Amino acid sequence: MSALKNDTFLRALLREPVDYTPTWLMRQAGRYLPEYNATRARAGDFLALCKTPDLATEVTLQPLARYPLDAAILFSDILTVPDAMGLGLYFAQGEGPRFERPLREEWAIRALAAPDPADKLGYVLDAVRSIRKALDGSVPLIGFSGSPFTLACYMIEGSGSDDYRTVKSMLYQRPDLLHHILEINTRAVTDYLNAQIEAGAQAAMIFDTWGGMLSHRAYREFSLAYMARIVAGLKKENEGRRVPSILFTKGGGLWLEDMAATGCDALGLDWTIEIGDARRRVGDKVALQGNFDPLCLMGSPEAIVNEVEAILESYGPGSGHVFNLGHGINQHTPPENVNVLLDAIRKTSPGYHAG
Amino acid sequence: MSALKNDTFLRALLREPVDYTPTWLMRQAGRYLPEYNATRARAGDFLALCKTPDLATEVTLQPLARYPLDAAILFSDILTVPDAMGLGLYFAQGEGPRFERPLREEWAIRALAAPDPADKLGYVLDAVRSIRKALDGSVPLIGFSGSPFTLACYMIEGSGSDDYRTVKSMLYQRPDLLHHILEINTRAVTDYLNAQIEAGAQAAMIFDTWGGMLSHRAYREFSLAYMARIVAGLKKENEGRRVPSILFTKGGGLWLEDMAATGCDALGLDWTIEIGDARRRVGDKVALQGNFDPLCLMGSPEAIVNEVEAILESYGPGSGHVFNLGHGINQHTPPENVNVLLDAIRKTSPGYHAG
Repeated sequence: MSALKNDTFLRALLREPVDYTPTWLMRQAGRYLPEYNATRARAGDFLALCKTPDLATEVTLQPLARYPLDAAILFSDILTVPDAMGLGLYFAQGEGPRFERPLREEWAIRALAAPDPADKLGYVLDAVRSIRKALDGSVPLIGFSGSPFTLACYMIEGSGSDDYRTVKSMLYQRPDLLHHILEINTRAVTDYLNAQIEAGAQAAMIFDTWGGMLSHRAYREFSLAYMARIVAGLKKENEGRRVPSILFTKGGGLWLEDMAATGCDALGLDWTIEIGDARRRVGDKVALQGNFDPLCLMGSPEAIVNEVEAILESYGPGSGHVFNLGHGINQHTPPENVNVLLDAIRKTSPGYHAG
Repeated sequence: MSALKNDTFLRALLREPVDYTPTWLMRQAGRYLPEYNATRARAGDFLALCKTPDLATEVTLQPLARYPLDAAILFSDILTVPDAMGLGLYFAQGEGPRFERPLREEWAIRALAAPDPADKLGYVLDAVRSIRKALDGSVPLIGFSGSPFTLACYMIEGSGSDDYRTVKSMLYQRPDLLHHILEINTRAVTDYLNAQIEAGAQAAMIFDTWGGMLSHRAYREFSLAYMARIVAGLKKENEGRRVPSILFTKGGGLWLEDMAATGCDALGLDWTIEIGDARRRVGDKVALQGNFDPLCLMGSPEAIVNEVEAILESYGPGSGHVFNLGHGINQHTPPENVNVLLDAIRKTSPGYHAG
């Protein structure tokens, strides 16, 4: 592997000195980019894009060709793992993800098994290797997975949901069954992330999209406890370098202290929390990633610049901040507004890293 | 008016001694009750139910006939105010609320005016009077309104939304227009709640359903500031008694200190926050209402009882707690599970109010 030319992102995650605040954007390769839509049209559909390493490589690199970003993130879907478990992932036209065989019956839950990533998710590992090669050491590559609880939400409901009533009914009626699913998912996600790391992912992020709809008590028992086990089970070093881990629970702002106690290197923050408050609460335990409201990218250049400055000022001087959105970039975002965002960060952030 | 036989709810809101933890349930008159569905079928549709004082009275009293609740809440919709402004509220079959004329153009926004409640919302005030008469002093009646920001969300989008992209685009592009709408809404909601109080509402609750999707900074500027003005403008006493106000921002757990500083009497809490932590944070400034996960009512009796005990234990001894759900009761809730909930509260809570 070629030496890493820009390791600002990795250093910020480990709270080592940097010259400016490194930046990447959740869902940076996505529908707001015309070049992405062109590749996706060529692929036929979203899943084909995920499952064809050459195309996944192409779209992973598109935002880096356009913008001065400090990290690439593997282009994939959080539901590849349950798909590899045999649940039959598909995307209905104009709707979110669905499973052909959602987990509803006890026999199906008992039959669930963690897939061998090399066997069932080889296309993801091939994509990681191919992206690393294409990046040629320019910036680091982030691998990722959904959290065990977030995967379970889709696996049980069979699709997205307003209230995840089926999942919560299981949680409050048959917690043993939900725990069984989460056990399997935890093993699967640990193996999957370690396989991504071995294939070349230089940081690992766990997306807990739905943990935030749990009660504080249920969050600890059904989401955080399992993410903590994954963090403990992750390969900590590869290619002679620390592989930092990032935990992101959307809506988890009340629980940061407990998230930081898992031993992860960084926490992702949504836009509801003041990043300076978050920093005071977690101290020097973890780095912080976030937390620009993605819909502020629909705003005026002035609003975007103000928001960037407020976030940098709130975090304050010193390393340990990776600038990002608080959630994935909206598909209706004007691509030129991303330039306004990045210019403002590059202009203002060095002042917080001087001396 | 007849003397109030059970004022436990009002006393708890003012943190005065009580014998047990009083309880009501958000959306307690609703689709989980067969008797509600029967009345609604007779009414023809939901709006007719809201707009016919006799029927609104009937459904308001239904949960009180079935369960030992400590308060009634006016049966109405949060969108009656924008409907009275001329936006044309309707409910499409199987969907949420919609407006025929959403606020998209500057001229329409500039033409917006706060309605005179006596003139345009007389049916609500008639319902309040009729419900008070029917309650005959058994328990207090809660009046309510949506928050200015939450009303603005529906008024601008024209319906519910996943991300309120149109609202947030206005917020970040034309904050002056959004502020203008919020000004008008604030005047309208203040007048509306005061008219409800004058008609007989004995407590006033502001539902800020969508403030929680704002950034911490935008929440203060576009939602909380306007709710604070409403709280300041509310009639504080009626019939020789304090009329307590309750502020509820779903997803607002990070902002409780600022919410408590508005001068309201109580805060509603969703289920993501530990109520004991909330109590430590707000001190003796306000009472707290909540915060049982509504979907726990889909669970086993054991799960329901455990959750009740955990919440009562977390709040701890002394007054200032109104037991409630963290959000409206789910339409699929088995009505008998509400008995399990209420029995557990009545059995366990007196221990926290002894001595």
